Amino acid sequence: MTKTIAFLVYPNLTPLDLIGPLQVLKPLERFGPYRVVTVGERLEAIPSDAGLSLTPERLLTDEPHPFAIVVPGGLAGPIQAITQEPLMSWVRAAASSAEIVASVCTGSLILAAAGLLEGRRATTHWSFMDALGRLGAQPVRERWVEDGKFILAAGVSAGIDMALALVRRLTDETTARTIQTLIEYDPEPPLGGIDWGWVEQADLGRSLLAPALPELRRILAGHPDLARKLFP
Amino acid sequence: MTKTIAFLVYPNLTPLDLIGPLQVLKPLERFGPYRVVTVGERLEAIPSDAGLSLTPERLLTDEPHPFAIVVPGGLAGPIQAITQEPLMSWVRAAASSAEIVASVCTGSLILAAAGLLEGRRATTHWSFMDALGRLGAQPVRERWVEDGKFILAAGVSAGIDMALALVRRLTDETTARTIQTLIEYDPEPPLGGIDWGWVEQADLGRSLLAPALPELRRILAGHPDLARKLFP
Repeated sequence: MTKTIAFLVYPNLTPLDLIGPLQVLKPLERFGPYRVVTVGERLEAIPSDAGLSLTPERLLTDEPHPFAIVVPGGLAGPIQAITQEPLMSWVRAAASSAEIVASVCTGSLILAAAGLLEGRRATTHWSFMDALGRLGAQPVRERWVEDGKFILAAGVSAGIDMALALVRRLTDETTARTIQTLIEYDPEPPLGGIDWGWVEQADLGRSLLAPALPELRRILAGHPDLARKLFP
Repeated sequence: MTKTIAFLVYPNLTPLDLIGPLQVLKPLERFGPYRVVTVGERLEAIPSDAGLSLTPERLLTDEPHPFAIVVPGGLAGPIQAITQEPLMSWVRAAASSAEIVASVCTGSLILAAAGLLEGRRATTHWSFMDALGRLGAQPVRERWVEDGKFILAAGVSAGIDMALALVRRLTDETTARTIQTLIEYDPEPPLGGIDWGWVEQADLGRSLLAPALPELRRILAGHPDLARKLFP
């Protein structure tokens, strides 16, 4: 039986959160009984937070119970998403029947706000770790975190690593290596890895988030409980 | 004066080729006089090779002479693109006036077919290195290659590393580190780097390309010279 892996598309998501794991998981269609699709509330161009728009292939109502779901993140995008009941209902229903529930970056805030991560080991973008904890999860600083059927990636680009780990779990090492080679994922960050000491010292989290806070709080104006947990 | 960085969107491109560097370069808008846009022949949803479609923000004719262009790759997509004269005219004109010309993966085949890489050090997806040489460039096996105003990345995910190197060149190390941290690019491929010995031994290039060859040759039916160089 075909196993559908559904990537959620919603307004103002961060496109690399979605495209990183999509590019890794899409080739599974060649290696097994998988079907990889993008799903959204409308089959229209949905604006991302990087300028261009993304049009999903299927409606949420077309794919109520996929084998796996992948929930990308963003900044204003996921905060808005957790206030949208039709979308959150799909996330709850699809996640409860799915065998794999994946997220990238602040996509895990959507899962947590849906009540799905209560007491679970979880991760998110480094700047939202405390917020994730206040939403009931146990935040863990790892590149990706697996807890039962949940597999959650850290910020943005971490979705690529998480998706390769998921391919290995669903198939085998050879398939994971083949796909890694196909997308030539042999990373060489020109300045090396992230210097977390410098990030701390520069208080980068605060300075990156501060300009967005008024808008984020405004989005949650009707949801004081979420606002208090996310942006106390 | 605002410096425009234009990402080319065309049918059947590989979305990570585009989205990787877009996610790195888009935040430049906060750090300097940059404007980052996606451009295409039509302001419509353009299918990618991974299911979902991408809608660019501006027409090619709106942005005839950007400061920088970024040309993503794919498999059938770029091969088709090099047969499309309106698109190739834009690439030639925009590249000749641009101060930076970037490509990801087989995007460099588009530049080479446009006559822009004659005798230049260049790179592409590992499986297309010989083809790049037959199109007149000097193929180099590096993660990204800089030659004058050209900065060309290896396959798919290499666009992220290339774009961070470009940010460092256009701004400074602190900005490059800030953006790297923003997208949490601290890679941990679950199986480590690519095992190139295994790739060679498994003859992976041939086995991945073989199923697509008939279609690729058909696309070039009216272009025997290109067909001979690309797929001899």
